[in-house]
Amino acid sequence: MKGNWYIVEENFNPQQKHVHETLFTIGNGYLGTRGSLEEGYPGQQSATFVQGVFDDAPVVHTELVNFPDWTSLEIILAGEQFELTRGELIFFKRSLNMRKGLLSRRVRWRSPAGKTVEFLFERFASMADPHLLLLQLSVKPLDFSGEIEVRAGLNTCAENLGLLHWEWLGQAVESRSAWLHLSTRSTRIEAGLAARMSARGGKNLHQEGWDVRGHPTLVLKCRVESGDTVVIEKAVSVITSLQTDHPHMAAWERIRDLEIPSWETCLKAHKDAWSKKWQKCDVIIEGDDEAQRALRFNLYHLLIAAPRNDKRVSIGAKTLSGFGYRGHVFWDTEIFMLPFFIYTQPEVARDLLSYRCHTLDGARRKAQTNGYRGAQFAWESAATGDEVTPIWLPDLNNPYTLVRIWTGDIEIHLSADIAFALWNYWQATGDDAFILSCGLEVVLETARFWASRAEWKEINKRYEFNNVIGPDEYHDHVNNNAYTNYMARWNLRIASDMLQWVSSNHPEKAAEIMAKLRINHREVEQWQKIADQIYLPFDPQSGLIEQFEGYFQLKPVDLLQYAGRKESMQAILGISGVNETQVIKQPDVLMLLCLFPDLFDQRILEANYDYYTSRTDHTHGSSLGPAIQTIMACRAGNIAEAYEHFTRAARVDLENLRGNSEHGIHGASAGGLWQAVVFGFAGLKVRAGKWEVHPALPDHWQRLAFRFHWQGNQQTIDIRRHGSGYEVQMS
Amino acid sequence: MKGNWYIVEENFNPQQKHVHETLFTIGNGYLGTRGSLEEGYPGQQSATFVQGVFDDAPVVHTELVNFPDWTSLEIILAGEQFELTRGELIFFKRSLNMRKGLLSRRVRWRSPAGKTVEFLFERFASMADPHLLLLQLSVKPLDFSGEIEVRAGLNTCAENLGLLHWEWLGQAVESRSAWLHLSTRSTRIEAGLAARMSARGGKNLHQEGWDVRGHPTLVLKCRVESGDTVVIEKAVSVITSLQTDHPHMAAWERIRDLEIPSWETCLKAHKDAWSKKWQKCDVIIEGDDEAQRALRFNLYHLLIAAPRNDKRVSIGAKTLSGFGYRGHVFWDTEIFMLPFFIYTQPEVARDLLSYRCHTLDGARRKAQTNGYRGAQFAWESAATGDEVTPIWLPDLNNPYTLVRIWTGDIEIHLSADIAFALWNYWQATGDDAFILSCGLEVVLETARFWASRAEWKEINKRYEFNNVIGPDEYHDHVNNNAYTNYMARWNLRIASDMLQWVSSNHPEKAAEIMAKLRINHREVEQWQKIADQIYLPFDPQSGLIEQFEGYFQLKPVDLLQYAGRKESMQAILGISGVNETQVIKQPDVLMLLCLFPDLFDQRILEANYDYYTSRTDHTHGSSLGPAIQTIMACRAGNIAEAYEHFTRAARVDLENLRGNSEHGIHGASAGGLWQAVVFGFAGLKVRAGKWEVHPALPDHWQRLAFRFHWQGNQQTIDIRRHGSGYEVQMS
Repeated sequence: MKGNWYIVEENFNPQQKHVHETLFTIGNGYLGTRGSLEEGYPGQQSATFVQGVFDDAPVVHTELVNFPDWTSLEIILAGEQFELTRGELIFFKRSLNMRKGLLSRRVRWRSPAGKTVEFLFERFASMADPHLLLLQLSVKPLDFSGEIEVRAGLNTCAENLGLLHWEWLGQAVESRSAWLHLSTRSTRIEAGLAARMSARGGKNLHQEGWDVRGHPTLVLKCRVESGDTVVIEKAVSVITSLQTDHPHMAAWERIRDLEIPSWETCLKAHKDAWSKKWQKCDVIIEGDDEAQRALRFNLYHLLIAAPRNDKRVSIGAKTLSGFGYRGHVFWDTEIFMLPFFIYTQPEVARDLLSYRCHTLDGARRKAQTNGYRGAQFAWESAATGDEVTPIWLPDLNNPYTLVRIWTGDIEIHLSADIAFALWNYWQATGDDAFILSCGLEVVLETARFWASRAEWKEINKRYEFNNVIGPDEYHDHVNNNAYTNYMARWNLRIASDMLQWVSSNHPEKAAEIMAKLRINHREVEQWQKIADQIYLPFDPQSGLIEQFEGYFQLKPVDLLQYAGRKESMQAILGISGVNETQVIKQPDVLMLLCLFPDLFDQRILEANYDYYTSRTDHTHGSSLGPAIQTIMACRAGNIAEAYEHFTRAARVDLENLRGNSEHGIHGASAGGLWQAVVFGFAGLKVRAGKWEVHPALPDHWQRLAFRFHWQGNQQTIDIRRHGSGYEVQMS
Repeated sequence: MKGNWYIVEENFNPQQKHVHETLFTIGNGYLGTRGSLEEGYPGQQSATFVQGVFDDAPVVHTELVNFPDWTSLEIILAGEQFELTRGELIFFKRSLNMRKGLLSRRVRWRSPAGKTVEFLFERFASMADPHLLLLQLSVKPLDFSGEIEVRAGLNTCAENLGLLHWEWLGQAVESRSAWLHLSTRSTRIEAGLAARMSARGGKNLHQEGWDVRGHPTLVLKCRVESGDTVVIEKAVSVITSLQTDHPHMAAWERIRDLEIPSWETCLKAHKDAWSKKWQKCDVIIEGDDEAQRALRFNLYHLLIAAPRNDKRVSIGAKTLSGFGYRGHVFWDTEIFMLPFFIYTQPEVARDLLSYRCHTLDGARRKAQTNGYRGAQFAWESAATGDEVTPIWLPDLNNPYTLVRIWTGDIEIHLSADIAFALWNYWQATGDDAFILSCGLEVVLETARFWASRAEWKEINKRYEFNNVIGPDEYHDHVNNNAYTNYMARWNLRIASDMLQWVSSNHPEKAAEIMAKLRINHREVEQWQKIADQIYLPFDPQSGLIEQFEGYFQLKPVDLLQYAGRKESMQAILGISGVNETQVIKQPDVLMLLCLFPDLFDQRILEANYDYYTSRTDHTHGSSLGPAIQTIMACRAGNIAEAYEHFTRAARVDLENLRGNSEHGIHGASAGGLWQAVVFGFAGLKVRAGKWEVHPALPDHWQRLAFRFHWQGNQQTIDIRRHGSGYEVQMS
């Protein structure tokens, strides 16, 4: 069904403008541009973020810098300015074509003086040329003839919620085009922007450039007769010094070399590139249009956020679609988003993992600062890999107190998550070269971190990890978090295994890396010894894994009594209040079972699923939870519950379920949604170098089909309902 | 000597640009504009601050908002842009005429292509019409003829060190003029700015306006022959919604109604207004040109910072000349700057004191929040009188720690300082009406605060004020600070005295205010009782007043051993380190003796002067110290030492002695300098409703003359050296 490729806004709702700016973000992996209105609207948050362009900021350390709004157009119709705050809005329809990565908006508007006009705005960020941004405006006066004036500026005064990051370096303006040369204030990254305007269909065309310092502006005027249409094109190029020297010249040349008009040609290349993307990763769901559209929406946002051929950047928790978390990168990437890329675009997955190699020195600095060895990856990471988690945030309720943010200090599982992701990529792709050139070093250095972080407890004759935060952030400063301890053990063992594999298969490489990192066999033996003696809390009788030491003794809370609540249990009980209860923000033990399906048998899985599911704040806890919960419900055999969790993940942004979509797309939930479908409903399982599927679809799903990469080959899985079972075609 | 009216910069030094921006600030009490360059310079901090226009800001709560730079001019000479970063600077001289409040700059510059041109930039903020700002540019090509293009914009993107406070509301642009309508983001104060450009002397004059949203720009082009001069005038008006509704219309009308050219007429009115100002307050020093010029420089900065007919605003610690302390008002105004105004322009002093009446409710809120009665004035005060001292500031050395700023909590002497200032004004002016309408209420409410803040110590049978900070901020959380305790006692007693005076002279007014404030006689008796029993630390034998309990036991430090240091003793010893020593940031006990010359006899004065002088960080402690130290040295009979301290105050900004003049003028030091001359060297003493002078001039001073107001009459004092003594003319 064609409609499943579209996200549509039928009526303009200014109250929802920030959420819609997020949903209607376009991008191409190099940059993302929020769906703000070209003509402006009071209070709107226009933003364009470019991968890797960070600048210093108070409290949050560093943030992705908002670029000058390349979409802005002022439109004057026979002397009257087009603004949605005035006149009469007769028709409004905004539509995101996810198949083509094209955003369009049809508006019929009557001016205060009574002139009626029809607009069609279309824009895309070229998927074929990441530095090319195109915008086309069709203007059709319905009941008047007169002059149409369009002003298109590049305004240096782009802000990050009130904060300025740009310094003006230079500009040039001609009658039809202009360039702007900027630099970030602290990190001294230069940006070049160039714009060109042209028109087809009007009469008495006049163009001029206004050379206003910091705000070069192109002006186009022409006469249009009633019923005729003039089509105005604004082409913009954006490049930074992370790609080239003299980025303003590079942007300028790109614009200069475009044919006029460039729309059709560029759009064709763009659509072809999108088509190739979707061929690799589209998932077909029949029998559930909402799920189909929502899944594509989430994949669309992953596709426009994923870096292109750039090993220095990753995907922030809120992608490139909002100011939330300031573009910082979390475990969200490796554990939630990465599997989608590993199995559909392994080359992108490799780049994402390369970011952790690129920032390995930052992780080494963090380990050293904290008194450990090896590499401790930053809980929040940006350009350098140094820790950029805010240390203190103001308490919204009481300005005299500040809230200490502990995740940057003690949420340590991330280092093992990254090792896990590297290994996962390797298993799926067989990309030995990457492991040898980069992945192995990360795994060894994280193992070394774990070995130095482990504490030997003589009284218990075991290694422990104390004073940590697990995935469930409702509880901090806990001891022996099961997820953390298991992952640490796994990291230590896999490092030893991988080193053995390299020694056997590439002995010269093994010698080289051991020399470089000064690793000897005694150290590796020590890793194995520690791994064997790490405390793993498990009660064989009940089959329950205790989330951390003492969790079972915490106050139980009947979450059903809080049904219908509109805020998180943390907001209701307070930070320290919730800490004292068994309520958890997201599945923590279940997360572990999700990553290692063969670690425990079905009895244990079900026992833990039942126990922890009733204790989880599914609706207002972590947005990372529902997708994982879907997979675990599938494995526990409860498809109805699985679908409920799936819906919660699918709608998180489309229905702004958590009330914070204005800050950007929930990237981890988007990646988790793909996993929920593929690892959950389709039951894709990878084991001992082989894969298999065990489908269990929601009742109303007739078909589920997807492609995935395995060891360099593309596989197709097509699951159709057949009687009470399934027919599965694989090719 | 005419030169004593000028501050001159002979060579352009980009390293010193921020300091010179402060020194060359112009203003008229309504607004201040830093001396940045019209054509711009990389990194320069242009700023225009308007009295009372505050907006919310992180950490510092609220700050004066930087207005669009009304001075900006882009100048293009036959296609080449004038910029000091390029070409050859042949001549540069910037000069501030303090008598006329006129800033001018002569530049001779050769462009990269070899064109030589002479510029004269002149600007003033009209002292006759506070909403009128004028700028005149003369351009004289010396060796070429061609087109001169000048662009004058009003850019909404005015920032407070990276932070944006403005929201764009609207604008209009015509060929010769434009207006801009803005609003602050949080406080919703609207600003209107209008600009007009005109030229005399060129040929083929062409003018147009560029209607760039947020940055309306006027463009003027004309042809000038080699050796001819074109004079371009930019007139700007600035008004806010604190003065009028629709401020953009008001600004627009003001510009529209000006004659063309307006320079000469407006300058004449401006000079006349300045002339009247100086007639009231100029101080003549003969025999010391540096002192003469420096004193005028400091008075100039007080004159351009003092509010005009606005009872809702005061003077910030850094006047309107920089971002330092964000426009917040401290005791600096009442204790250091106010005497200058009381004795030269009592109507300004009255407005300054009215600010405390206007913000009395804020002080009441602060008292109530802290559990006290009456009015506790904010240590840092802005638009409402609520406390705006930052609570935490980041520790520059370690981002994991924040420094808790305690002054807003426990530096409480300010409430008595304000009462003292009110009484001082009353004594000098006899302005009963003001005391009845406003001053009395403040004195009563602060007395009430003191009564509720005092702690009865049964063991010592006395009232104490514990956990405070005195004027010397090197020591915090001290008990029974002598200055605070004396001032509190004085405040309690004067409240009772004033109430008695009102009861005798205006019984209906006394009844009215007692009813309004619900004060009864028992409460007043309680004030007297508390005042009588407040602990006042004084050792009759040595004559020493202990700065606070335990001060005498602190570690002594020989400051001579630190001679030549370039930083404060607090920076050298650390915040807690200096706390443990006897080193003080500024005279604290001496401050008390300075305010109450008759409290102790000469023996005690000299004992305390000797004791505390050797323990004070005169060079790098508080900039408030040297002026007071001058007065006390005079009283102790040590004129040589007095002159040394005087010089330190006189040069603080002119020679950037403390390395922070870029943040703005040291307003308290400026006010203190006037006191140092008048109360110090001239020895003006007010006692029992009469005044007298006891001159003791520095050796090389031949003459010291000044005017002052006393009980509604202007007095002239003219002191000339005569043999080994002085001839004093009074009229």
